[in-house]
Amino acid sequence: MRIARFSIDGNVGFGVVEDDALDVIKGHPFAEFERSGQKVPLDKVRLLPPVLPNKVVGVGRNYAEHAAELGNAVPDVPVTFFKPSTSVIGPGDPIAYPSFSQEVHHEAELAVVIGRMCREVPRERVKDVILGYTCANDVTARDVQQREKQWARAKGFDSSCPLGPWVETELDPADLTIQCTVNGEQRQLGRTSDMVRPIEDLIVHITEAMTLLPGDVILTGTPAGVGPLNVGDEVAVTIEGIGTLTNKVIKRG
Amino acid sequence: MRIARFSIDGNVGFGVVEDDALDVIKGHPFAEFERSGQKVPLDKVRLLPPVLPNKVVGVGRNYAEHAAELGNAVPDVPVTFFKPSTSVIGPGDPIAYPSFSQEVHHEAELAVVIGRMCREVPRERVKDVILGYTCANDVTARDVQQREKQWARAKGFDSSCPLGPWVETELDPADLTIQCTVNGEQRQLGRTSDMVRPIEDLIVHITEAMTLLPGDVILTGTPAGVGPLNVGDEVAVTIEGIGTLTNKVIKRG
Repeated sequence: MRIARFSIDGNVGFGVVEDDALDVIKGHPFAEFERSGQKVPLDKVRLLPPVLPNKVVGVGRNYAEHAAELGNAVPDVPVTFFKPSTSVIGPGDPIAYPSFSQEVHHEAELAVVIGRMCREVPRERVKDVILGYTCANDVTARDVQQREKQWARAKGFDSSCPLGPWVETELDPADLTIQCTVNGEQRQLGRTSDMVRPIEDLIVHITEAMTLLPGDVILTGTPAGVGPLNVGDEVAVTIEGIGTLTNKVIKRG
Repeated sequence: MRIARFSIDGNVGFGVVEDDALDVIKGHPFAEFERSGQKVPLDKVRLLPPVLPNKVVGVGRNYAEHAAELGNAVPDVPVTFFKPSTSVIGPGDPIAYPSFSQEVHHEAELAVVIGRMCREVPRERVKDVILGYTCANDVTARDVQQREKQWARAKGFDSSCPLGPWVETELDPADLTIQCTVNGEQRQLGRTSDMVRPIEDLIVHITEAMTLLPGDVILTGTPAGVGPLNVGDEVAVTIEGIGTLTNKVIKRG
């Protein structure tokens, strides 16, 4: 099932994607919900970020080839960092090129959407805390990341976390193709089976320290092929079984 | 004016601290508000974290003596990191010793509470975006911080961000004593005038990248004297002109 968050005529809601329409949900997807049967054509709504995360936890260097392309070793323990809620944008929303960077990179990633409040999740219970999966772009100011020891600004600036287009709740994430194009040209291509640490390990590791809330998002790392974005570019992240997240890069106003 | 957030009989509200009572506020402190004249004795309420931050932005190594005591240089650019909302606790709430660390440290800090949504704040407008100041303890799993390249787990675990006891809105933060005691014994003593970069610089630097929201919190760094906390300890952060934030360390349940 694909669950989208949308706005139409100033109203915001969730809906189940069916062909070219949304079946509007009564309530929200973090509990049992009913479909209203009220169908809204997809081309009449604006898709929003599919969730409003309280926090986004990123994982760095989780694909060996990507770690190597930036001259980094695969770390002994996962590299975890936060992207704030203010960095989240939805499908079709602009990525505003930040004024303090001259080298902004795309990073296509599989995003895990958390479905229930949890901490200290045992490996065998990880599946129970996941609502589903969506596409993410972990947009990174590479020059700032290299200059500043911690990545709050480099990976936390406004519009640096496009998410969408919807949450796919029935998907085996173990071996999916993940692709990034810029202006239609392929830049990144990988398979989620190449993650250094699988999703189970990441959620055990993160929830050992902190509580995750419904709607929180885990970014699972990017495959090789990261590279620059420029004003005017259209960047698209496509993940097998989910769909495509497209955003344009604009000058920050 | 001191603004506290409190609960009594299951109700949550804000109030202005006057002697030993709270004058309950109609509305919230992020807009013009009226006092209700309804007084509640301070010893009848439970004080909560004075704000519910969407994000807490920390600044590392902002006191030269503290940077030196951990063998670090003062950085060329501020070291900025996030603590998530799930790390925030209030005065009197327990700090739960995390299972994945054997060396948890106190870090007494002056916290800046943001009053209005802002980004790209010019230096001369910084005062306009600040609601006030409170005490913070940037509790840190030092061993994990040294092992993991990014600090999300080391500084983001549950209960690692005590804030309180209230927000002082009329205070010149330029030269205040900041003190930390453990079981009544002094561990840290500094002056905010020793910050490497003053609050104005930090807010310019952070908002160059990201939007701050009402209730967001900036931690301004810790003076020298950080050291271990153990289960059973009572840690208190006192800042001149604000008050004292006290928390006990317990075994994580």
